Amino acid sequence: MLATAADCFSRYGYAGSSIDRIARKAGVTKGSIYYHFRDKEDLLAATVLDRIAEFEQRVQASCDGLAADEALRRIAHVCQDHAMSKDHPRFLIMLMIESIDTNQQVSDQLRSTMRGFRRFLAGLVRRGQQQELFRADVDPERVASAYTSAVLGAEIQYYQDPDSFCMDDALGHYIDTLLVSLNGVRTDSLQENGENR
Amino acid sequence: MLATAADCFSRYGYAGSSIDRIARKAGVTKGSIYYHFRDKEDLLAATVLDRIAEFEQRVQASCDGLAADEALRRIAHVCQDHAMSKDHPRFLIMLMIESIDTNQQVSDQLRSTMRGFRRFLAGLVRRGQQQELFRADVDPERVASAYTSAVLGAEIQYYQDPDSFCMDDALGHYIDTLLVSLNGVRTDSLQENGENR
Repeated sequence: MLATAADCFSRYGYAGSSIDRIARKAGVTKGSIYYHFRDKEDLLAATVLDRIAEFEQRVQASCDGLAADEALRRIAHVCQDHAMSKDHPRFLIMLMIESIDTNQQVSDQLRSTMRGFRRFLAGLVRRGQQQELFRADVDPERVASAYTSAVLGAEIQYYQDPDSFCMDDALGHYIDTLLVSLNGVRTDSLQENGENR
Repeated sequence: MLATAADCFSRYGYAGSSIDRIARKAGVTKGSIYYHFRDKEDLLAATVLDRIAEFEQRVQASCDGLAADEALRRIAHVCQDHAMSKDHPRFLIMLMIESIDTNQQVSDQLRSTMRGFRRFLAGLVRRGQQQELFRADVDPERVASAYTSAVLGAEIQYYQDPDSFCMDDALGHYIDTLLVSLNGVRTDSLQENGENR
């Protein structure tokens, strides 16, 4: 049911997805939806929570046991797979934009999801710094903000123009330059000088 | 009038902006709007063209006479100023998302705008390569895709969460890593070896 709801919201927007339409698509009665959810806003909130939980589990599972640099590369792949899958990929992003001025509850949920994603990335960078995999003079929060921008912006361009925008190129180039900046230049020159050994 | 229309579409979405509402806000009669525009879709298309032209002029003017690396830094500032201005910044981005499945004409306009922006950036990178400011083994199209992602993703996070997302940090970090990757490493080592002198 929540998957069908996500499908409807994703395809017709919030305004275009009546409880009636969702019930019909899901092959259930309107009554059974109202049994579980107070109203359409309540159903939307549950749908969002369900999709967020799925995405967060996927991200976390994907970098279990990986070194920080491999994890940063892996997460970009997970986001890309997610964007290119048939699994309502646009749903959360469309909603993130649409809900900014219109739906406080959903807007709050998505804001806290994005904060969590950035916090998770900053934690990865910090871990990489503690393990001396990444140079120490980089601000983990700045990396997390730029990383999230790169992923989000690539997803949107891909949804908008799958024929001319290559998500793999955009994310690949971003991750390559990021990893060079995190562990390349300064670390190498320090190592040559023997300063961090 | 087009500015008021942009303001309405930006605030209430396409569905929530009746010709009636726009006419009232602009202080004109419905008749005078219908004199110039066939219907609401036609008015929206004109509004989009007007905003796009304004943004493109700003970007192009901003990097007149600048070297390619300075131009890449400057454009990020222009995008940031644009996003943080009171000048209907969300309008084009909200619409880009909303129109994907719903409005072919506007969707086509915005798709071609994004293609133009990426082409402009790729041209800058190519110019930097010809002037031996940037290393030659970087694909200008990949840079353009990643750059556009970084800007777009930063704008959206800023609209969603201005209190916790620092656009300046996100774009600053991205541009710094990009410029290092474009002209830093390889060029330096070539120069040390005297190969490109």
